[in-house]
Amino acid sequence: MARIKLILKYDGTEFAGWQRQRETAETLPTIQAALEGCLSQIFEQTIKAVASGRTDAGVHAEAQVVHFDAPRDLDNIRLVRALNAMLPNSISVTHAYVAPDDFHALFSATGKTYRYVIYNSAIRDPLQIRYATWVQKPLDLAKLEPLAKVLIGEHDFKSFQTSGTEVKSTIRTVEKAHWSRLHEPLIEFRITGSGFLKQMVRNIVGTMLYLHQNGGGPSHMTAILQARDRTKAKMTAPPQGLHLHAVYYPPELDKACREL
Amino acid sequence: MARIKLILKYDGTEFAGWQRQRETAETLPTIQAALEGCLSQIFEQTIKAVASGRTDAGVHAEAQVVHFDAPRDLDNIRLVRALNAMLPNSISVTHAYVAPDDFHALFSATGKTYRYVIYNSAIRDPLQIRYATWVQKPLDLAKLEPLAKVLIGEHDFKSFQTSGTEVKSTIRTVEKAHWSRLHEPLIEFRITGSGFLKQMVRNIVGTMLYLHQNGGGPSHMTAILQARDRTKAKMTAPPQGLHLHAVYYPPELDKACREL
Repeated sequence: MARIKLILKYDGTEFAGWQRQRETAETLPTIQAALEGCLSQIFEQTIKAVASGRTDAGVHAEAQVVHFDAPRDLDNIRLVRALNAMLPNSISVTHAYVAPDDFHALFSATGKTYRYVIYNSAIRDPLQIRYATWVQKPLDLAKLEPLAKVLIGEHDFKSFQTSGTEVKSTIRTVEKAHWSRLHEPLIEFRITGSGFLKQMVRNIVGTMLYLHQNGGGPSHMTAILQARDRTKAKMTAPPQGLHLHAVYYPPELDKACREL
Repeated sequence: MARIKLILKYDGTEFAGWQRQRETAETLPTIQAALEGCLSQIFEQTIKAVASGRTDAGVHAEAQVVHFDAPRDLDNIRLVRALNAMLPNSISVTHAYVAPDDFHALFSATGKTYRYVIYNSAIRDPLQIRYATWVQKPLDLAKLEPLAKVLIGEHDFKSFQTSGTEVKSTIRTVEKAHWSRLHEPLIEFRITGSGFLKQMVRNIVGTMLYLHQNGGGPSHMTAILQARDRTKAKMTAPPQGLHLHAVYYPPELDKACREL
């Protein structure tokens, strides 16, 4: 038996998110079910995969991290190639590693970076709409950036948590939160932190966009954060702009991984 | 009556191309039918739209040019807004102009630029696959560029024409043909010419990729061009990498257009 770490890239548009669900004719497939289906075929037995965290329906991943336990020797399997041959075009495995037995995609993670991409233009762009959120009114990064800076540090982010998931603590540390301009008319919000609550990034982005639109400043953002009350935060930004960019692990765990 | 010039952007993935077809349950919709449907609703009578040229199924447009005749005054219609509210997310109208009566999207065009985008990476990228063609083996731009340079000038491009469309002449002038690196791992071939035969860009790109793969050089490209024989050219590159980038008209016609 070997614990395997995979890096996945996916277009979340046509999935009901990462987490496996009871699939019916009405539900969209999930990324977990697609991956586990392929792994179970390869190893001829049921394989369970664990991700660094769930991604919502419509959210994309540039480097989602997943682990599973391979029940037998992998020497005769070109795992990355085999998986990519079986997975739909909307999911790729970019890397596979033999990881230490105590590596856990969720519990070992020390942090993550998300990117939220907006295209800011008067007219809808059919070539952007799948991977970025359309905002029609001009956005001023000089107004958005001070809102982002409020988030930096250790805070109780309860105001930005969508209910529905039990967590022991809603305290998280945000290390970086920064708006920047990509090539016109794209804008990106990038946030790095120790962990993220349910829909936290989308709730943060939605609130920043709401405050920007309605003349709210950093003091309003601070008040919403300090309220520790979900009803004080504003809109939830739509999923298509959100990309899970990277998941971080302790350096000793990274070093102990051997690429397959 | 006023002749109207529209600029359209579209994601061609889910369309059977520009040209209207008899649609059945089995066929994909067309961009022409979607646009004409909206125009006919707005003007409450059948409207026909003429494009600068057909785009194939799966081919995208950054700035397709279309004209139609508006049967009545447009003063009370915010045409761009009305069309974008009715069109599917995969099509946008970015500009609308009142054009001179003798403006014709197809016959007035003096040239076009196409971009062909490739992502050159060992592993399929779900976030690129819709708008770029995946080439696994490393491409060397220093080998591709001399193949492109063979195309520049006035030539009979019969070798690069897919049969099926009657044209008077297969002679066209290519002004620019250039490979360049976008952000890693994207590569772009950009070609500007007086006009393009059926699938000419895809046949040119497919042939260049074939020659690159098989050690063919500019002399082979020249031989294929001079053969004036479709059977001498090689592969047709797939549609998803192709983007109609711009259509050109005489400056006096551009100046005579008034933006709506």
